[in-house]
Amino acid sequence: MEIILKKIILASKSIDRSEIFKRAGIPFEVFVTNINEEKFKTKFSNAVELVKELAKAKMLFTQNELMKKKIDAIIIAADTIVVLKGEIIGKAYNEEEAFKILKKLVGESHKLITGIAITEIQNPKIIIESDTTIVEFLQLSDEEIWQYIKSNEWKGRAGAYSIRDKANLFIRKINGSSSNVIGLPMHKLYEILKKEFGLNLVQFK
Amino acid sequence: MEIILKKIILASKSIDRSEIFKRAGIPFEVFVTNINEEKFKTKFSNAVELVKELAKAKMLFTQNELMKKKIDAIIIAADTIVVLKGEIIGKAYNEEEAFKILKKLVGESHKLITGIAITEIQNPKIIIESDTTIVEFLQLSDEEIWQYIKSNEWKGRAGAYSIRDKANLFIRKINGSSSNVIGLPMHKLYEILKKEFGLNLVQFK
Repeated sequence: MEIILKKIILASKSIDRSEIFKRAGIPFEVFVTNINEEKFKTKFSNAVELVKELAKAKMLFTQNELMKKKIDAIIIAADTIVVLKGEIIGKAYNEEEAFKILKKLVGESHKLITGIAITEIQNPKIIIESDTTIVEFLQLSDEEIWQYIKSNEWKGRAGAYSIRDKANLFIRKINGSSSNVIGLPMHKLYEILKKEFGLNLVQFK
Repeated sequence: MEIILKKIILASKSIDRSEIFKRAGIPFEVFVTNINEEKFKTKFSNAVELVKELAKAKMLFTQNELMKKKIDAIIIAADTIVVLKGEIIGKAYNEEEAFKILKKLVGESHKLITGIAITEIQNPKIIIESDTTIVEFLQLSDEEIWQYIKSNEWKGRAGAYSIRDKANLFIRKINGSSSNVIGLPMHKLYEILKKEFGLNLVQFK
């Protein structure tokens, strides 16, 4: 397989997504988008549709900005939400919200859904997909939930937890892609980039 | 819940196990054991029995050494293997072995089994358990397997891959504990330490 080096833009400010790219040895640059997510939440009540539309909006925003700067690149955008019994759960903005979210999630199974949108500046092709992982939490007491909240892992994370860190203590099982729970279904990115954009992510050291 | 601080000894030289403890905010010290693993592999052909016996041997070795030094502590030992269609697969010792292992795993589902053994120096209680996670790999070409091997992630890892790193690209799904795939089923450690040893791992910041 020919080695093709293209600039890869990760249209996400998530430190978890950056970390998973780094750990996979993928060279990339971060581009931070500015999307009014609340507007989308009102418009799209279906969770899969919502994350796909948000990922697409981030991708298009990035494409538009980079075209102005005449930068050629592959753009990867993503958005992640948690769904519990049909209810869409996003990020918490303070400790009380984090507690309310975690109180709902403990002792239950929820869906972690990530939408991904991929394009290339000089290519009309746009691929939009989603991936769902089921995550099952152990039961925790209110005191334990507060102890967890003090770790600050809830900040900026859909569902107010981080599977890379302390939340491992109460994740009983997952069913699906584990990288998807961190915010990027890497096996899907690998397949899409290889098949649709001729870029093999395994090649990087 | 009362905060009890006990010294925690991780009887494992695995950098992945140390990393998962660090990321969970658990204070610990590493103790490296010296067990003849090959002898156990001859004696125990059942995979679950094998990892439990190996974890127990590491735990007892550590307990014995620490008692000599009059150190009080909780000891956590673990051993991980991969099982594919009944065949027990351990670590590779060179690139050719890593290739042979990965060639078997691609396009298939395997079991990742970790045995854990826990005790406390001044406590006759010993808890030995195991945890199994099913891991499903995408298909990869021989060239891609070699590209992966060049990342050196195969070194020192059961099954010659690391779910924390580049192997995310070809892990289609897992069913079970994700921390177990890294080498420690953290939800089981959390439950055992809380119930049997009065130590709550969520308490640490």
